[in-house]
Amino acid sequence: MREFHGVFPYLVSPIGADGHVLEAELRRLIDHLVAAGVHGLTPLGSTGEFAYLDWTQRRRIVEIVVEQTAGRVPVVAGVAATTVAEATRQAREFAAIGADGILAILEAYFPIHDDGVIAYFSAIADATELPVVLYTNPNFQRSDLSLPAIDTLSRHPRIGYIKDASTNTGRLLSILNRTDGRMKIFAASAHIPATVMLIGGAGWMAGPACAIPRESVRLYELCRAQKWDAALALQRSLWRVNELFAAHSLAACIKGALQQQGFKVGAPLPPQAPLSPEGHHAVARALALAAEAYAAAPSAA
Amino acid sequence: MREFHGVFPYLVSPIGADGHVLEAELRRLIDHLVAAGVHGLTPLGSTGEFAYLDWTQRRRIVEIVVEQTAGRVPVVAGVAATTVAEATRQAREFAAIGADGILAILEAYFPIHDDGVIAYFSAIADATELPVVLYTNPNFQRSDLSLPAIDTLSRHPRIGYIKDASTNTGRLLSILNRTDGRMKIFAASAHIPATVMLIGGAGWMAGPACAIPRESVRLYELCRAQKWDAALALQRSLWRVNELFAAHSLAACIKGALQQQGFKVGAPLPPQAPLSPEGHHAVARALALAAEAYAAAPSAA
Amino acid sequence: MREFHGVFPYLVSPIGADGHVLEAELRRLIDHLVAAGVHGLTPLGSTGEFAYLDWTQRRRIVEIVVEQTAGRVPVVAGVAATTVAEATRQAREFAAIGADGILAILEAYFPIHDDGVIAYFSAIADATELPVVLYTNPNFQRSDLSLPAIDTLSRHPRIGYIKDASTNTGRLLSILNRTDGRMKIFAASAHIPATVMLIGGAGWMAGPACAIPRESVRLYELCRAQKWDAALALQRSLWRVNELFAAHSLAACIKGALQQQGFKVGAPLPPQAPLSPEGHHAVARALALAAEAYAAAPSAA
Amino acid sequence: MREFHGVFPYLVSPIGADGHVLEAELRRLIDHLVAAGVHGLTPLGSTGEFAYLDWTQRRRIVEIVVEQTAGRVPVVAGVAATTVAEATRQAREFAAIGADGILAILEAYFPIHDDGVIAYFSAIADATELPVVLYTNPNFQRSDLSLPAIDTLSRHPRIGYIKDASTNTGRLLSILNRTDGRMKIFAASAHIPATVMLIGGAGWMAGPACAIPRESVRLYELCRAQKWDAALALQRSLWRVNELFAAHSLAACIKGALQQQGFKVGAPLPPQAPLSPEGHHAVARALALAAEAYAAAPSAA
Repeated sequence: MREFHGVFPYLVSPIGADGHVLEAELRRLIDHLVAAGVHGLTPLGSTGEFAYLDWTQRRRIVEIVVEQTAGRVPVVAGVAATTVAEATRQAREFAAIGADGILAILEAYFPIHDDGVIAYFSAIADATELPVVLYTNPNFQRSDLSLPAIDTLSRHPRIGYIKDASTNTGRLLSILNRTDGRMKIFAASAHIPATVMLIGGAGWMAGPACAIPRESVRLYELCRAQKWDAALALQRSLWRVNELFAAHSLAACIKGALQQQGFKVGAPLPPQAPLSPEGHHAVARALALAAEAYAAAPSAA
Repeated sequence: MREFHGVFPYLVSPIGADGHVLEAELRRLIDHLVAAGVHGLTPLGSTGEFAYLDWTQRRRIVEIVVEQTAGRVPVVAGVAATTVAEATRQAREFAAIGADGILAILEAYFPIHDDGVIAYFSAIADATELPVVLYTNPNFQRSDLSLPAIDTLSRHPRIGYIKDASTNTGRLLSILNRTDGRMKIFAASAHIPATVMLIGGAGWMAGPACAIPRESVRLYELCRAQKWDAALALQRSLWRVNELFAAHSLAACIKGALQQQGFKVGAPLPPQAPLSPEGHHAVARALALAAEAYAAAPSAA
Repeated sequence: MREFHGVFPYLVSPIGADGHVLEAELRRLIDHLVAAGVHGLTPLGSTGEFAYLDWTQRRRIVEIVVEQTAGRVPVVAGVAATTVAEATRQAREFAAIGADGILAILEAYFPIHDDGVIAYFSAIADATELPVVLYTNPNFQRSDLSLPAIDTLSRHPRIGYIKDASTNTGRLLSILNRTDGRMKIFAASAHIPATVMLIGGAGWMAGPACAIPRESVRLYELCRAQKWDAALALQRSLWRVNELFAAHSLAACIKGALQQQGFKVGAPLPPQAPLSPEGHHAVARALALAAEAYAAAPSAA
Repeated sequence: MREFHGVFPYLVSPIGADGHVLEAELRRLIDHLVAAGVHGLTPLGSTGEFAYLDWTQRRRIVEIVVEQTAGRVPVVAGVAATTVAEATRQAREFAAIGADGILAILEAYFPIHDDGVIAYFSAIADATELPVVLYTNPNFQRSDLSLPAIDTLSRHPRIGYIKDASTNTGRLLSILNRTDGRMKIFAASAHIPATVMLIGGAGWMAGPACAIPRESVRLYELCRAQKWDAALALQRSLWRVNELFAAHSLAACIKGALQQQGFKVGAPLPPQAPLSPEGHHAVARALALAAEAYAAAPSAA
């Protein structure tokens, strides 16, 4: 089983006004990110607007990402559903397409107890041979993963990762302590990546890495090399990108940033609003600051 | 355009273990409810587990309800999506099937501004000739309808109703005051129906009415006849049913209550839990109390 | 033991820039309210800024209110503390001053379990011979009264009332059902008074009644006489006053309204902001609308 | 003006059943903490139950702490009020007693805008010559400090520190970025101290340091020496203490831990519950684990 670590950008989902996937642009973005050194790709995360896409669109995006990546880095595809039946169906289809891992998302409508949460994620892990990354985002989802549920799930042979999108960094250390080596942690854009690396994180899965891939990779390498002073100097500037993405709508922000970089990825699906002119201005400043900090950063070697 | 008023039970969605709609039982339930005197039927509300069904299941349920109801009472079908494109597609299909109205639900993932909310609901109302009931449930949904947005939407010629599932009854009077006759109100199970009737409500759309239809109809008639003492005597007992449904999961509760009444509607879709033994016991007591209060209630004539 | 029912205005606390109670103006306000027919007076509620006053100010206000009211209507004084020791001390002092009842408020800082909540309120009820009104306001306080805690407390011989400032009117009916005659309910400004009267409420304790006393008394009388059509016609207009008070800061709003009526009650204590010019304008319109509706309302006789 | 950095334990407030400060035990605790190497002392923080003490108790505690500390380390005393008048009065009294700094806490009851927040904290800073530490705890308080408000306040010559008790570590980096050197950060027990040191923190002010002072000081020294591997090894064990303190009530937990260490500091003030037997057991295990990790930790030299 392939091991996951490093920087995994959440891919935006480029969709045209007629609902079709903008295939050429998505392929170009994938090549760009791989060339920048990212360690994996994650289609259909929050930034990828999974909640706004129908199955035809979701399936086509994973097909394109798997084909275009061609094994250069692992592809961890987002499975998101309210029912066990639909989630396992998605997982099996993504495995058949050739994904390297599953990012598992629970979309509850009614409140749900730990038993149901555990049943849902276990069923996904049982459905294929792929490694599973648990995803929890208390800001946007109507369920959360409790520490006891995470502990139980960490004992499944194929559940070895968690990506936590709360802003509570202490919770990550609690997960690491509690699962005692059975669970690796990926940070989200709501955590400071360098601090998560300090406590033993495996990397981060985040939308901003889609817009600042080489900067993110350099930060990761500096952390791995324990060059903390240089890492922090870079981190302070990159954090402004994360702040921006928290202030604006995630998908609008990353799609806007990529448009500024020449990728015609379209707007978020209506009724979501595209990035405002002020947002574009703020994004441009943040990207420039990131590029500047990158230029000043030493190599990790 | 048909006018809606009175008691509209939210229909449960009977689904077998293989994912197929339990058609015969659904038809029997519809006949039972119509015979009990309900004023309309609402498939695919929260109680109907819309968030847990795929499109094939949703479509088949509306087909069966429209066909079996055969015009005896209006059918208001639930449209629920995150995107304008998907919502309008659903609305057009339900209109083609023969629904009498649309219950419009916005399933946001990212936070959304009033502009987007208004665009979403307006697009649904523009998509067909059917009257539209706005649905807002701040407990389970990630968006809410502000008073200014409701005011704007009430000026659309086909948006004349709102069903508000907050627990805030004062908000209903604020909506009535603000929309000045352009908007009729349906109560949800979280409001006391008799109090909503007192302030000028048109009726209620609620899961409990699926389990206590004749009791609900009698309560409605007593309120309409302004026999408030008799209405309140009945209301006090029926409220215990609503309390129960709030304490347990809605769909599990109503499906459990119907099973007790001999309807084989199955369990909620996994990973939702079915009604617990304790829940079944509490439901049985509440149904008995409701029947008793019904027996003691005078007719409204 | 004196029974409480009807309209109990929450008195504002008129405090000068030097921190002294504006005694003359407070006495004039009391006479004005009693002349308008209110059924009781409640100093040191939320609107009375209890949380912003020191003990010297609180004690002086209760002394003035008891003395000036001179038994014409009951005075229910607000006790608010974080500890049992301080709460019982306050209760005993207010009893010695001559208050007719205690409005009991729990100011938790850390979360507290039901055992602690019950201990706190029971100690207040044990401290004096006065009847106790429980007060719960989940919007501003860090504790809430659960139904089981209310049930337990309702069995204390001196705890016979509850004033619930949630917006959840259904909760009031649940309390009435659960306590089975042992507990009377007072509505807050967040509930529609007429609907609370319909379900069996005893009246309301609220800030707005300080600014529209005669209108509030008329509404109460119409509800008591079961003239629901006339009550609702008046209620619809008065509700706009309640909406306004929810939109602005309570104390600022009522102090502003009273200033418009010629009572020099001062501003809320800093750093609270006084009513803005826009707020004053909106209050003026709402008061005019209330006066108009009052003029059009029939008498209850 | 004295500069603050390092480990500042929040002192518990030892109060007897009769309400008097347990003076001898408090003096013994102070000597114990100073001997363990803490860099400062903070009476009347959350852990110190400021919200449960009257002014006589608060004042006496600060007198004892200042007298007993006798300048060995700085004493930063907690000022907490709802009004500007009361807060500035407290600050002036603490300055007169001889405190070295003010920990400024805003106890809002009604929601408050940034203008009022800024006015409140500025008034405290204007009231004396002492340096001011802003305190914000969104979990227990009804106000929060926005980034723009923090930015404005950081320009006051005597406001140079902030202690943030949210769990959101990213917010600390945002504050550091935004205030550009004008504001130093102290972590709370809800943040992982080592990660806050990594991003440039000045230390931490926290309840747990009252129970594990020498362990906390060692962790601080290892972070300062940038011995991150050793720091993290210690941090992982100490974090279990912080987890515990979050799970139980803060004051009960620290008072319970100190009782286990032989300090007769009494129970939290009623109606707060004392530490349960299970809590005592968990605290004992966490303290043992901390001692073990301390024994294994290298010196920072």
